[in-house]
Amino acid sequence: MIKAGIIGATGYAGGELVRLLQGHRETQIVWYGSKSYIDQKYSEVYQNLFRIVEDVCRDDRLNELADEADVIFTATPQGFLAGVLTEEILSRTKVIDLSADYRIKDVSVYEKWYGIEHKSPQFLPEAVYGLCEINRGRITPATRLVANPGCYTTCSILTAYPLMKEGLIEADTLIIDAKSGTSGAGRGAKVQNLFCEVNENMKAYGVASHRHTPEIEEQLGYACGKNVTLSFTPHLVPMNRGILVTAYASLKRKPDGSLPSEGEIRSAYEKYYGEERFVRLLKPNVCPETKWVEGSNYVDVNFVIDERTGRVVMMGALDNLVKGAAGQAVQNMNLLFGLRESEGLEMVPCFP
Amino acid sequence: MIKAGIIGATGYAGGELVRLLQGHRETQIVWYGSKSYIDQKYSEVYQNLFRIVEDVCRDDRLNELADEADVIFTATPQGFLAGVLTEEILSRTKVIDLSADYRIKDVSVYEKWYGIEHKSPQFLPEAVYGLCEINRGRITPATRLVANPGCYTTCSILTAYPLMKEGLIEADTLIIDAKSGTSGAGRGAKVQNLFCEVNENMKAYGVASHRHTPEIEEQLGYACGKNVTLSFTPHLVPMNRGILVTAYASLKRKPDGSLPSEGEIRSAYEKYYGEERFVRLLKPNVCPETKWVEGSNYVDVNFVIDERTGRVVMMGALDNLVKGAAGQAVQNMNLLFGLRESEGLEMVPCFP
Amino acid sequence: MIKAGIIGATGYAGGELVRLLQGHRETQIVWYGSKSYIDQKYSEVYQNLFRIVEDVCRDDRLNELADEADVIFTATPQGFLAGVLTEEILSRTKVIDLSADYRIKDVSVYEKWYGIEHKSPQFLPEAVYGLCEINRGRITPATRLVANPGCYTTCSILTAYPLMKEGLIEADTLIIDAKSGTSGAGRGAKVQNLFCEVNENMKAYGVASHRHTPEIEEQLGYACGKNVTLSFTPHLVPMNRGILVTAYASLKRKPDGSLPSEGEIRSAYEKYYGEERFVRLLKPNVCPETKWVEGSNYVDVNFVIDERTGRVVMMGALDNLVKGAAGQAVQNMNLLFGLRESEGLEMVPCFP
Amino acid sequence: MIKAGIIGATGYAGGELVRLLQGHRETQIVWYGSKSYIDQKYSEVYQNLFRIVEDVCRDDRLNELADEADVIFTATPQGFLAGVLTEEILSRTKVIDLSADYRIKDVSVYEKWYGIEHKSPQFLPEAVYGLCEINRGRITPATRLVANPGCYTTCSILTAYPLMKEGLIEADTLIIDAKSGTSGAGRGAKVQNLFCEVNENMKAYGVASHRHTPEIEEQLGYACGKNVTLSFTPHLVPMNRGILVTAYASLKRKPDGSLPSEGEIRSAYEKYYGEERFVRLLKPNVCPETKWVEGSNYVDVNFVIDERTGRVVMMGALDNLVKGAAGQAVQNMNLLFGLRESEGLEMVPCFP
Repeated sequence: MIKAGIIGATGYAGGELVRLLQGHRETQIVWYGSKSYIDQKYSEVYQNLFRIVEDVCRDDRLNELADEADVIFTATPQGFLAGVLTEEILSRTKVIDLSADYRIKDVSVYEKWYGIEHKSPQFLPEAVYGLCEINRGRITPATRLVANPGCYTTCSILTAYPLMKEGLIEADTLIIDAKSGTSGAGRGAKVQNLFCEVNENMKAYGVASHRHTPEIEEQLGYACGKNVTLSFTPHLVPMNRGILVTAYASLKRKPDGSLPSEGEIRSAYEKYYGEERFVRLLKPNVCPETKWVEGSNYVDVNFVIDERTGRVVMMGALDNLVKGAAGQAVQNMNLLFGLRESEGLEMVPCFP
Repeated sequence: MIKAGIIGATGYAGGELVRLLQGHRETQIVWYGSKSYIDQKYSEVYQNLFRIVEDVCRDDRLNELADEADVIFTATPQGFLAGVLTEEILSRTKVIDLSADYRIKDVSVYEKWYGIEHKSPQFLPEAVYGLCEINRGRITPATRLVANPGCYTTCSILTAYPLMKEGLIEADTLIIDAKSGTSGAGRGAKVQNLFCEVNENMKAYGVASHRHTPEIEEQLGYACGKNVTLSFTPHLVPMNRGILVTAYASLKRKPDGSLPSEGEIRSAYEKYYGEERFVRLLKPNVCPETKWVEGSNYVDVNFVIDERTGRVVMMGALDNLVKGAAGQAVQNMNLLFGLRESEGLEMVPCFP
Repeated sequence: MIKAGIIGATGYAGGELVRLLQGHRETQIVWYGSKSYIDQKYSEVYQNLFRIVEDVCRDDRLNELADEADVIFTATPQGFLAGVLTEEILSRTKVIDLSADYRIKDVSVYEKWYGIEHKSPQFLPEAVYGLCEINRGRITPATRLVANPGCYTTCSILTAYPLMKEGLIEADTLIIDAKSGTSGAGRGAKVQNLFCEVNENMKAYGVASHRHTPEIEEQLGYACGKNVTLSFTPHLVPMNRGILVTAYASLKRKPDGSLPSEGEIRSAYEKYYGEERFVRLLKPNVCPETKWVEGSNYVDVNFVIDERTGRVVMMGALDNLVKGAAGQAVQNMNLLFGLRESEGLEMVPCFP
Repeated sequence: MIKAGIIGATGYAGGELVRLLQGHRETQIVWYGSKSYIDQKYSEVYQNLFRIVEDVCRDDRLNELADEADVIFTATPQGFLAGVLTEEILSRTKVIDLSADYRIKDVSVYEKWYGIEHKSPQFLPEAVYGLCEINRGRITPATRLVANPGCYTTCSILTAYPLMKEGLIEADTLIIDAKSGTSGAGRGAKVQNLFCEVNENMKAYGVASHRHTPEIEEQLGYACGKNVTLSFTPHLVPMNRGILVTAYASLKRKPDGSLPSEGEIRSAYEKYYGEERFVRLLKPNVCPETKWVEGSNYVDVNFVIDERTGRVVMMGALDNLVKGAAGQAVQNMNLLFGLRESEGLEMVPCFP
């Protein structure tokens, strides 16, 4: 039985981790860390877990926790983990970080986009970017530190990856228009996230400045083998869960001026996702919908070729709290401990 | 492995059955019946099941199905099952009916409230009302026909049952004000259920005439040992899932004129639900919320004593598609086949 | 041109007042009071008013405002106005208070339910309860202080008033089950009002203890000429605006044991509302829906007689920010200044 | 008093026209055309108009209506008006068509995208495209036929127009990602528009094939003086009203390789919209939100320059039923009859 500790257990991502781990047959949660609710019963904060979880919330003492846990999940604000992580901790336990602290290899890029100093860049080299479908080979029992990808990032990368990797699109024409449910904004008490402000409303935010941009650029850069600069625009949607990505790029024309065919594009997706448990390439002409993956670890992707403009429109949908956060963290844990990758993640999406 | 067939597999309750049975370790679905989608892939109707269910939809041929299936779930319009059920079918398979056809013992009451003739009243005596927490003893491997309770009904009965059973309230003062998510209205294409008609709106409907009324009256009548006439008002709420019941009744005063105490009322609830897996009596002062049970088979109940009026306000919340339909049907199936009652139903509620 | 000042102009009720007064031909807002946003442009807080309102927010200085304004609207927390109101202010301007400070005549009842000391009970006798349809005769140019009714209260009273007044129901059997959109919870940044907590959820709250209860009891007590004790349960609904009231009461039987007829009940409603501009008695069998009154000053009411239980189910719907707050305040202002009662309130409900 | 007739009065756009015209001081509706509800009271179909509109619905007899009405609004399916319009009708009355029949000058483009034959192309030359802010000079008392723009179209064009017109962006790099509330899908009873299918869901549809594409291309082509081919992707959002457009284009670099400055872009918007009543250019860094224009005729626009990619992100928001349909139709009517352009359209947006 793997002993897991969670720091930041009462945020939405932390809460989802707790939910998922109840259904994981090889794991037991030994620490519900939540500075705001210390000594309060966890199930009083999340009543859905009433009579299911009996533990009380505890402090954020990572050092102490490192002794008790085989793996620590940190669902904490940016900069927290970087400020407290030590070699001593990593030598005793594994860490899966749901924050952005170890996602970006270039510390100056991190510091520019996040506006904070990185306190432990020495761990950046060993941190593995935990996008399982792409980095699976590097997430092994030997790995100590996993940087769990962001929600927008996971959806954006998986949507565009095969075409970037296969060189089927012009990398610098890539534009990602992303739409997110409101749980992505967290459980902090802010006026802008009140029901009446979000409901019956839609808006873009963080235009040309959202922090997930460099993370997407770095990973897609690895895919196509060169630096990528892209446009990324997040939007807030009046729904609890779900991210939908609509991505646009110019197709690379062949020497004869023709566009890649529907079949060629489809083959590229199949090459990378054909064997994947959690990525579903939909049938032609079926657009991904967030509702079809809700509550599950699936990512649904598809594409449409626009002959008129020479572009391809790529689409992807996932549940931001599952594949976009807690589910992917569990998937990473499974890889770290040599378990079946889908253990605890076999939930069928819930509709309606 | 139990072989299960579903008639009406593409309605919302049918779809939920399919979802739940994917996680049931002892069951295999052998027949996806859906007259509207014959020969179409089930996962094209419910894309959430893409790459999970590969079967195509089939016709409603109950007779043929009776040979293939150990149990048949009928999630069909009122009157359908009563019109086709035969001794021959029941001699070969078990039937769990999610419609109202065999819920009401008095055929004249059924015919009056539903406005249709009952075509096979001969099966009414043997049909068992499948509210597991109350009728568990009668749902056994010997049972052939289960009348799975309605969604409003399950929530209403379980909310009021202990106080009715223990004679703590005046039966004829009972008023049930129920609020339901829109999936309860089904997947039929009707203007009144369009997004724009339901969203940002709330209304009562079927006032003093809703068909679930006699079903609640009959069951609560058994509880208190006499005929009960009550007020039941359903409301439509702009949410997908969930039923919330707020029930009002005058407390029976003791000979000295005093009201039952908080402790006495609580004891009554604990007496009936203390050992129940799926009914959670909340802590004092915590009101049930539909979101805390969403996607799960739980019913959350609680109460508040109003000293000023001498009434008790009883509250209950469940997911209409799970405990209010498909989940309860699976719970009944588990009892019918001698399995662990919670098999396939151990989902933690999903929040947010 | 009437000069109006608003204290608490950046709450939802205050914002609605601003919206409504833009369409009022006889009024000009001279003071946008908002302690939280002093010196900030009002239209930066409410972008819907961009290029419509150019003023900046100002402090809550009631004394200074009394010199500038012919009427002051206070959309402030309980206790604020009672703490600052003076004879000097009232001698210079009229005050329409959207808080509860002067709604309840018995100061001990106020202090018990609100849990605060009333600082200026000397103004209670002259304060007029501003439910125009019932108290119109007392809201005149001579009136200085209007206690604008609460949102739940307005809906509850108007729904039950005719039958209480005409003695057609047993007063002490009255049970009011009310459902409210989330704007009624205000614009404060609280976790429980975040989008993800409210959306796809429904719950009761303040059971047997909500502060609007004594206000309803007092007014309905005047109607039937005796003290009334009733059950009132508010619920939170995932929609922005709207209150729906479902009220239950036993009909008074006639000496021969028969119930009042549909026609008799309807006549009672028509007697009080037949000439009312803003109360619409719907056609038989049409249930009020909050969406049909959204954005307008209308209250829709109707009823169903339940022969089986001898009860009547009364229903009412209004927009909590209009007829339940700002619209009624404008209606009161119109009466105070001898204007046409519907001036500025002739908006057609907005659907969908 | 202008006499107006509406054909298709019971669709959502028709209903909004009725709502707006109640507040128009120079117009009277003389004909509520609705084939589906002939002889039924209009206010039974739209209960928000109970006691406000007393008329009954009538047939679609355009010829007869032409004698009674000074102006006819047709809110009808594609092809209807083209099939019945005659010179005789146009010689007697004005027609404002909310369908697409006369929006596209090139009949072959219309027939290709709409898949139907155009039955009266002879009226195409005289039809004026009724986007008031751009075509105002051509919408005059002499005009007989106005092609009222589509909802996506109005928002898309107004968002990009100044930069296209001023040649600040590379026309063929334009990508429009549009998000719409569900009322845009109409009031037809379709499964895909049921509450449970739309709520908590988001999807793209009509990718690379939506019918509004050529309309946007034609109008923006006029703006920049050459043919434009662009990408347009509509999305369905779980809200009743509102369209949000996020548009991307590469900025034209100056001879020295530099990008246009923030000030230059802003000036272009101010040049075209500075004096416009209904187009609001927001302050820098404020993103348009659909809620801030709800229920009103406003379009809010703004932009962000992305120095990294050399692109500009343009954003626009409007209410699809007002500025995107009925409001613009009224604006056109005002121009046709020489009235103040904003008559009947001065509603302040409703928040929340």
